[in-house]
Amino acid sequence: MSDDQETPAQRLAVLRSAREALDSEIAALEKALGPRVSPLKPGAFPVLPRVAGVSVATAATGTRYRGRDDVLMVRLPEGTSIAGTFTRSATRAAPVLWCQERLADRHRTGERGPVGIMVNAGNANAFTGTNGMEATRRIAEGAGAAMGMPAGSVFIASTGVIGEPLDDGRIRDHVASMTAALATPADGETKLWCAAASAIMTTDTFPKGAGCTVILDDQPVTIAGIAKGSGMIAPDMATMLAFIMTDAAVDEALLQQITSDVVERSFNAITVDGDTSTSDTVLLAATGQAPAAAITAPADPRYATLVEAVERVFRDLALQIVRDGEGATKLVRITVTGAESDAAAKTVGLAIGNSPLVKTAIAGEDPNWGRIVMAVGKSGERADRDRLSISFGDLIVAEQGWRSPRYDEAKAAAYMQREELAIGVDLGIGSGVASVWTCDLTHGYVAINADYRS
Amino acid sequence: MSDDQETPAQRLAVLRSAREALDSEIAALEKALGPRVSPLKPGAFPVLPRVAGVSVATAATGTRYRGRDDVLMVRLPEGTSIAGTFTRSATRAAPVLWCQERLADRHRTGERGPVGIMVNAGNANAFTGTNGMEATRRIAEGAGAAMGMPAGSVFIASTGVIGEPLDDGRIRDHVASMTAALATPADGETKLWCAAASAIMTTDTFPKGAGCTVILDDQPVTIAGIAKGSGMIAPDMATMLAFIMTDAAVDEALLQQITSDVVERSFNAITVDGDTSTSDTVLLAATGQAPAAAITAPADPRYATLVEAVERVFRDLALQIVRDGEGATKLVRITVTGAESDAAAKTVGLAIGNSPLVKTAIAGEDPNWGRIVMAVGKSGERADRDRLSISFGDLIVAEQGWRSPRYDEAKAAAYMQREELAIGVDLGIGSGVASVWTCDLTHGYVAINADYRS
Repeated sequence: MSDDQETPAQRLAVLRSAREALDSEIAALEKALGPRVSPLKPGAFPVLPRVAGVSVATAATGTRYRGRDDVLMVRLPEGTSIAGTFTRSATRAAPVLWCQERLADRHRTGERGPVGIMVNAGNANAFTGTNGMEATRRIAEGAGAAMGMPAGSVFIASTGVIGEPLDDGRIRDHVASMTAALATPADGETKLWCAAASAIMTTDTFPKGAGCTVILDDQPVTIAGIAKGSGMIAPDMATMLAFIMTDAAVDEALLQQITSDVVERSFNAITVDGDTSTSDTVLLAATGQAPAAAITAPADPRYATLVEAVERVFRDLALQIVRDGEGATKLVRITVTGAESDAAAKTVGLAIGNSPLVKTAIAGEDPNWGRIVMAVGKSGERADRDRLSISFGDLIVAEQGWRSPRYDEAKAAAYMQREELAIGVDLGIGSGVASVWTCDLTHGYVAINADYRS
Repeated sequence: MSDDQETPAQRLAVLRSAREALDSEIAALEKALGPRVSPLKPGAFPVLPRVAGVSVATAATGTRYRGRDDVLMVRLPEGTSIAGTFTRSATRAAPVLWCQERLADRHRTGERGPVGIMVNAGNANAFTGTNGMEATRRIAEGAGAAMGMPAGSVFIASTGVIGEPLDDGRIRDHVASMTAALATPADGETKLWCAAASAIMTTDTFPKGAGCTVILDDQPVTIAGIAKGSGMIAPDMATMLAFIMTDAAVDEALLQQITSDVVERSFNAITVDGDTSTSDTVLLAATGQAPAAAITAPADPRYATLVEAVERVFRDLALQIVRDGEGATKLVRITVTGAESDAAAKTVGLAIGNSPLVKTAIAGEDPNWGRIVMAVGKSGERADRDRLSISFGDLIVAEQGWRSPRYDEAKAAAYMQREELAIGVDLGIGSGVASVWTCDLTHGYVAINADYRS
């Protein structure tokens, strides 16, 4: 068939069917080659410090994945404080309910014996009825017996498919060998933490770790953490799991306060698709094995140093989740200033960060600031059209309710080609400030979520 | 290059760059051939009844589009009642503020002289500072002078690009010729209404009209309306404009009550992308020129008949907007029952209808009910995992917090291939009910909003 015999409409039909064939071949190849890796992936898995008292082990249960570990065991010593935040979903999964009960029990009884954490990937044990809670309890019983602690001291997290019964027997079959294999990752040793981060991945394209060392009482205190998450990501809490450990000694009620606080500015300030999972869990454990004395009150001069370090690790992990956002090609920080309150600033930031029209414009490298005006307007927070200013990086786009006389479309379009973008919005009506992070909405997101049947 | 020399990764790179080249060629051809038409487009533009007292005219101002009309004038006679609902965006456009002032003035003064409506497409006159309101006022003054009424009797709506100054002079240049051309669409005459609906289109792929005739007092009363909208569609109010006229005689306060009520179950029950525009406007005008006596109270036995007819027309127009959703290939009704209240049912329905994960699953014809569980959970409304039931059409998918024993994946997958889908969710905790309508999230949506720079 030669081109000159075709009408443009016929040519279009031919091209569309050629694209469909290409799409199928590409999908098949991608499947054969394994999942794509996010272009926003950071370099190698980071080198993390030793956290005294923390030991980890992983195993392959074959629940859903072949040829990879899919279950993680963590053991924390007697005297550990533990805190958590969870999805607020009304349909939250059995393991989330279980963890919330465990924290409430500890609060009531003051129990401070050893603590375990068991995480499995591939099956979320969500929407699995009363059977789901029984499966969770049996995992806790099995792991607790193996590690020498009551079932009530074992925290559980499950991530993966919703609505499939979880075969907990497969996991319990491995608790004895995992307990035997428990080992404390050494200082500067990457392999064990990377194995732990890899074992909890689902649609993630890279394992996520972060850590740091701070000096309290002239002594080093370490923090190390791992996380997973890639889609169904939105605050409260994003489809994500994160487990962070420090060897600091911190009163458990205070640790909870730190966790709840810092989560708001990290894991609860990111969004990929505005969808909230049934399973999101962040646990922060403090083993108390560092030489520094315990921190028991915010008035402690070391408190701010510790919180700052925890925030650095939480935020690093949270941003890695955005970088691994399904189909993401851009990491975008949205900073809202001049709002009525910090909470209002965050609501406006999330309205922008969740807007499909803003996110597709970013994917198209289009400095379409009109869509940002739209998103500010729909946020439900107070805004005054005539005081609103918008910037892309250092470029002023709009000020006082009007396109800026300094606006240069060519410069803005060039800026949008960057891989990391900063959008600034000043509402001009108060002093509330917040930053949120999002990614772009691409063909890749649709392909991952629509083209491949789950 | 022959296939056998390539590694699979090389082959993938070749295929991906071939797809990119194809995409560019397809985009260029699509542009040359004019916009795609939604596969969900209804048949021909409907035949509408004559609405006594209503006259319309259109013109081409060349503001943004070439070779098509882009401005609509409507004249309504003395004695007309008019009511409206508008976007609740905090950054709403000047014409919206203008219309809200006009309704408030009428409420205060009881003014019932002739009424005009001027609509322009291509420029939303939004985020255009104080100049935007002056442009709106000048259009009203020009049109009012031409049609023989004060500027304050002319309602204005603008749709199109945000943040560009509107050249109102181009519109005012046409008010005299449009006034001269004003004509009342005859009974069963399609051309004038279709021209009116076409003149207000932006990214719409087809003009939208609906109407009906009901009998009040043994006499026919007619309703006819037009609408536009395709993207930036979400309740409160969707990026949409709708103008509906009836020759019934209805007290103006009552007409407002009908409008506000019925909008909740029609235009405010649809979502394409969860994004809310700065310009959304629904106006319902009642000319009072039908023979039936005026309706002045809900106790009037004819009131329910009229409301039912108005609702039918509003819903027809609203569903046409979803059918024209950017990239849409499926029309989805989500009916939520058993909620704490009707409002709670609607919130749950919209959480499902706005979820990118649900909408991409629908695009992929994947009966992924786990994502519906997720969306119910994130809605913020009360739900009990163990009472939740989900159905696709007549197929029970999940009941009482568990996959139904009657669930048949193959049947569900076959159902998902339909063009029109019904998703049922029963929360099992109350008697609240609501239906919302949405479409799927496809590559087409991303292409329309990301690939073509605005």
